[in-house]
This record gives sequence, structure tokens and C-alpha cells, in this order.
Amino acid sequence: MSETPTVRKIHVPLGDRAYDILIGPGLIGSAAREIAARLTGRRMAVVTDENVAPLYLQPLMESLAQAGIEAVSAILPAGEKTKSFEHLVPVCETILGARIERNDAVIALGGGVIGDLTGFAAGIARRGSRFIQIPTSLLAQVDSSVGGKTGINSPHGKNLIGVFHQPDLVLADTDVLDTLSPREFRAGYAEVAKYGLIDKPDFFAWLEANWQAVFAGGAARIEAIALSCQAKADVVVADERENGRRALLNLGHTFGHALEAATAYDGTRLVHGEGVSIGMVLAHAFSARMNLASPDVTARVEAHLRTVGLPTRMSEIPGQLPPAEVLMDAIAQDKKVKGGKLTFILTRGLGEAFVADDVPTSAVLSFLAENHPDRAA
Amino acid sequence: MSETPTVRKIHVPLGDRAYDILIGPGLIGSAAREIAARLTGRRMAVVTDENVAPLYLQPLMESLAQAGIEAVSAILPAGEKTKSFEHLVPVCETILGARIERNDAVIALGGGVIGDLTGFAAGIARRGSRFIQIPTSLLAQVDSSVGGKTGINSPHGKNLIGVFHQPDLVLADTDVLDTLSPREFRAGYAEVAKYGLIDKPDFFAWLEANWQAVFAGGAARIEAIALSCQAKADVVVADERENGRRALLNLGHTFGHALEAATAYDGTRLVHGEGVSIGMVLAHAFSARMNLASPDVTARVEAHLRTVGLPTRMSEIPGQLPPAEVLMDAIAQDKKVKGGKLTFILTRGLGEAFVADDVPTSAVLSFLAENHPDRAA
Repeated sequence: MSETPTVRKIHVPLGDRAYDILIGPGLIGSAAREIAARLTGRRMAVVTDENVAPLYLQPLMESLAQAGIEAVSAILPAGEKTKSFEHLVPVCETILGARIERNDAVIALGGGVIGDLTGFAAGIARRGSRFIQIPTSLLAQVDSSVGGKTGINSPHGKNLIGVFHQPDLVLADTDVLDTLSPREFRAGYAEVAKYGLIDKPDFFAWLEANWQAVFAGGAARIEAIALSCQAKADVVVADERENGRRALLNLGHTFGHALEAATAYDGTRLVHGEGVSIGMVLAHAFSARMNLASPDVTARVEAHLRTVGLPTRMSEIPGQLPPAEVLMDAIAQDKKVKGGKLTFILTRGLGEAFVADDVPTSAVLSFLAENHPDRAA
Repeated sequence: MSETPTVRKIHVPLGDRAYDILIGPGLIGSAAREIAARLTGRRMAVVTDENVAPLYLQPLMESLAQAGIEAVSAILPAGEKTKSFEHLVPVCETILGARIERNDAVIALGGGVIGDLTGFAAGIARRGSRFIQIPTSLLAQVDSSVGGKTGINSPHGKNLIGVFHQPDLVLADTDVLDTLSPREFRAGYAEVAKYGLIDKPDFFAWLEANWQAVFAGGAARIEAIALSCQAKADVVVADERENGRRALLNLGHTFGHALEAATAYDGTRLVHGEGVSIGMVLAHAFSARMNLASPDVTARVEAHLRTVGLPTRMSEIPGQLPPAEVLMDAIAQDKKVKGGKLTFILTRGLGEAFVADDVPTSAVLSFLAENHPDRAA
């Protein structure tokens, strides 16, 4: 694997919705050049949040201005609550007010919340406007900025309102990762490890050997991000609208989402990537419990996630968790239950995940009860 | 053309988004049978307005209940103002609260406003839910219920926020047309005549000969609606996302929209179909003025629209119109102006409409000034 930290390009071949993902240092400063090479429009609307704006909005706006691009910007509150109609409406009006037309674009500068909300607004403004992702968290760079899922939350659940709207370009500036807190970086790393666990055991082994270099930055980090984006792009190209294979990307997410719901999305207790980390270990342990995979696989997965500093057990979540029955209800709300069975991502070994659509809820419930901290205590 | 008023079926072959349009009497009462033949789901959410609900909601809900379909309903205020985020949000929550899933559906029971709003909500709930149109106005039956354009209005303009979301089924129950006011029926008829003027001169001639039978109901009316739906479906299949040919459906709409804006969408002065009627005559007259078509064509078009009772001149709009410059501004807001040129649907003869993308705004402005009531008076 390459040692020089240059910009990597991944092409996502989705027919007339094909686009490039660029990964490397300094991409915010050269954003306008990359955009102008792909879009003829000269009007842009930039959407960001109040944490990201002080760091990166000015360099981006300057880059755009130098390229003769007239841009307006909107700065939203940071945090999951921003993914709501309340904030979507003014973003739509900003886009329409900027008279964004066919060859112009809407730019999301931020993490997953900003990317999801802005992508949705771009997807519905004039029934679909061009859209550029500039993800500023590791999680957004390796996961949410790629693949076209956009949306907001509803009182009925997360991401329940949205559209599939592919970006026209993704600029993953790896310099921005230096400003992330270690906890935030680790949370994103859980999604990186996930790609290995889905179907790339060699990548997982490489992460086990090279994770320190990935955390340190430089070529190994760019390599890990590029491989993650490539893995996600491959799945999205095979199944853009999640009729089948794309569900594999939910490995660890069914348990993880239930834990996020159980902690009321309180980021001081559990952030998304941490939920995914615990959820992936649970998914492997549950697969072992169902005699699908060896317990050794679970042990290996847990050991690596623990080594990088991620939580791997429910008992590590601060505060009280609701009982297993309540966690099970949260799972049943997230996934569709049909005749007492639900769809789950399970595994037959390291990097051998598959979509199981006939998992008995009773088995999940007793597994949750056995692993619940109240019982372990 | 057939004399027996049976149900006509038009298939819209849009690949994995293909659907049927059924046209004929009694379709609301047999809605559940048609739905159950196509969808396996047993949960539906019906959205309608307070004018339509007292007439048709109960028979529809009874039909669904008899087929074992569990349905909830939402009743919105009637009128264009309902096409707003304010009403979209509760409709989305109703759909999510009803736990509409992959094989269930959202049903729009109403005119264009209800169809556009409900289709948009269905398009974004769970990133796309199945959607059934039961249009209850002639305009919605021949135009807005077919083709997948959905959306709401913004302070920046009409229909600026939305998605392309094709229905899974359209049920055009022609019995409901008997309850329309003559004015509302005529307004819908303007869109019927439009299909003749775009590229079906024989259909226009048939309308000239048979319009009284179309207005009276029965087989001729079903025939006219079926032919209109077929014409629209053909255009949509050729150009679903309006990159080219679909723009022909805007014949008469550029002038028409400007007149609607100029009357502040006040339905007591001008309804959409009336604006289209005046706009179509203006589009033909402007084509003649540009030496593209004979003035005889304009005379023939105007004579027929006048015969059925539609307005054909700006001077027929009650109250004062803003000056030509303001109408021109409204056109420039609606269409994109590039270097003093705009895109317009013009014609070379009866049923020979084409997309002209180089019409000088100066020529449109002077044409508007010449035809303005202030000058004629």
C-alpha cells in the first residue's frame, strides 16, 4: 500500500448519477478547482454548522470566490436535533433564494448531520439540485457522505424522512481529521472496521496490524479511508436502493441503534460509532450463539475494537440501560418484524456477513437478556 | 371510438416504476379490489381535503375495510395554500404513524393540490413509499395525477420543492366529474385540448366535433380522458425528468403562470386551467407574430376554447393586471433566462408545438405590451 499521501480518487459508477470521491490533504483549499472541473455553474449554497464554520467555512468561501463562484452560506446549530423539518425549511429557502440552477450546486460542509440534512434539501429543491459533500468527520468521510442516503429524523424514528440523492462530488479532506477529538475519531473508526467485518477479512487483518498508523495520520489513514469508501461504493453500486445486499452495511447497527435509542441519543453516554462497535460485537456473539460462527471470531473482533479504545459491551455504557424487553421493542421499531421473525445482519466467520431474514425475535430477546449488564452485575 | 362506458386501462411502461391508469365509472367503490390486485400490503393512509372528504372518503374507507385493509385518513384544508411545509409535516407523521411499509401505500384522494402534496409526502416517507392517486378533478385526472411530479410551493415560487415519485396506480373515477362546477370542468378541459395542440391535430379536431358529448359525460368523456392520459404517459416515458421533450407539456403555461402570479393565485379571478387557456392562445399568437405559424391557427384554437366557455384573452380577467414589464418579470422568474433569451413552447401549426430555447425576452415583452388590456382599452 502506498506511502505517499497524495489525493486518491474513487469513481462511483452509477450511470448518469456517477461521481468521484476524492480523498487526501488540502481538499477544502482546492475545492473550487475540483468543483469547477466538474460543474459549469457559478452559484453555490454552502450549508455548515456552528462547530465547523469557524474552522473551515472561510477557506472554502475564499476558494470559491477566487474561482468566480458566487456562494451564500447557512450556519446551523450542531447536533442530531438539527436533522428536523424545523431546520430543513430555512435551508430549502436559502437554496431557492440563491437561485441555484441546473449546473450550480449545494455544498454540505460538516459531519453526518449536515450531510444528511443538506443532501435532503438539495434532493427536493427544484426536484433535485446538484450536491457536493465535504465531510469533516471520519464517520462522514467513510460512511454517510457516500451512497446517497439523505434525510431527517421524525418523532417516529431516525432517518425516516428523506430521499436517495447521490452527490455529484465528495471531497474528503483528511487534514480536517487532525482536529477531531480522539473519541470522535475512534467512533468513525468503528465504521472503517465494519467494512473488513462485512466481507474483507484481509482489510481487517491489515487494520489489526496498522491501526496505530491509521490513527496517526498520513498515508495509512488515507489508505484506510479510500478502502472504506471503495467498499461502500461497491455495495451501493450493486444495490443503490437497498433491496438486498446494501443491508449488509447495517452490520452492528440493529443492536447499535437500539442502544442509541435506549440512551435517548445522548452523545455524552454513547455516540453512533460506539453503538456500532458494541453492536458489531453483539452481532458476532449472537451469530456464535446461533451456531453460525465460531466464538473465536467474536473474541478476535472484540479484542481489536477494545485495543483501539472502543467500547465493546453494553456494561461500558454509563448509566442505567432499560431492560432487555425495551431494547427488543426498539429493535422491532427499527426493523420490520414479520410473524415473529426479523431481518438481521449475521456472520458465518470473519468477513462473512450475510442478511438473515428469519431470525426469531425470541432468540434475540433471550440473547439480550443474557448479555444485559443487570444480569452480568 | 367506443360507445360503452367501461373502464379503460393505460399502462405507463417506466421499467420498475411501471404502473396502470384506470379510467371509468365507479372506481372509488371498487378501489380496494384494484389495489389488492396490485399490492400485498394491508395498511394504507388516505389523504384528502375538506371539500372531497364529505363526498368520497366514506365509500373509499368502506371499500378498503371490506378488503381487510386497515386505513387511517387525514383531512386537510382545501386550496393552493395547503401545498406548504406546514401541511406536509403532519401528513408525513400520519404516514409514519400508520406504519406504512414496503407493500403498503399512501392514497391521495382529491384534486391537484392533494395529489401533489401527498405524492411528495409518500416520496420522502421512509425514502419512498408506495403511492396511489385517486384524482377527483378533471385537471388532476388528465394532468397532475400522471407523471410523478410532486411537490409544494415556496415563497420563492410554485412547485419549487418536491420530488419525482411515480404512483403505483391511478384510479380516475369519472363519476366524480358530475359533481364539478361547470367552471372547474372547463378549466380541466383546457389541459385536454392542450394534448391536441401539442402534437395531436386529429384529437383537437375530434374535440371540436365532440366537445358537447365530452362535457355531457359517458363514453366520449372517458375517451377524451383516456387519450389525454395516454398522451401524457407517452411524453413522460420519453423524458421522465424533463430534460427535453417533457417541456412540451408546458404549452400555454409560461404565459398562464405569469397571469396566475399577476392575479396572486386568486381563484375567483383566474384558475389554473383558465390561465392555460389564455396562455395557449397567446403562445399561438406569439408564434404567428414570430412568423412561425399562420394566424389562422390561432383563430381556430381561440374559437374552440371560446366555444366551450373558456377565457382566451387577458382582457377577460376581472380586475386590473400589472403592466407588461411585471408580467415579463414573472415569466423570467418561472423560466431561466440566459443572455436575454428564454425557453418557450411555440408552434409551427396546429398540433406542431416545439421547444424553442432562444426566444428573445425583448420580443416577448413587446408582444405582451401589444396584447395588454390597458392598451386594447
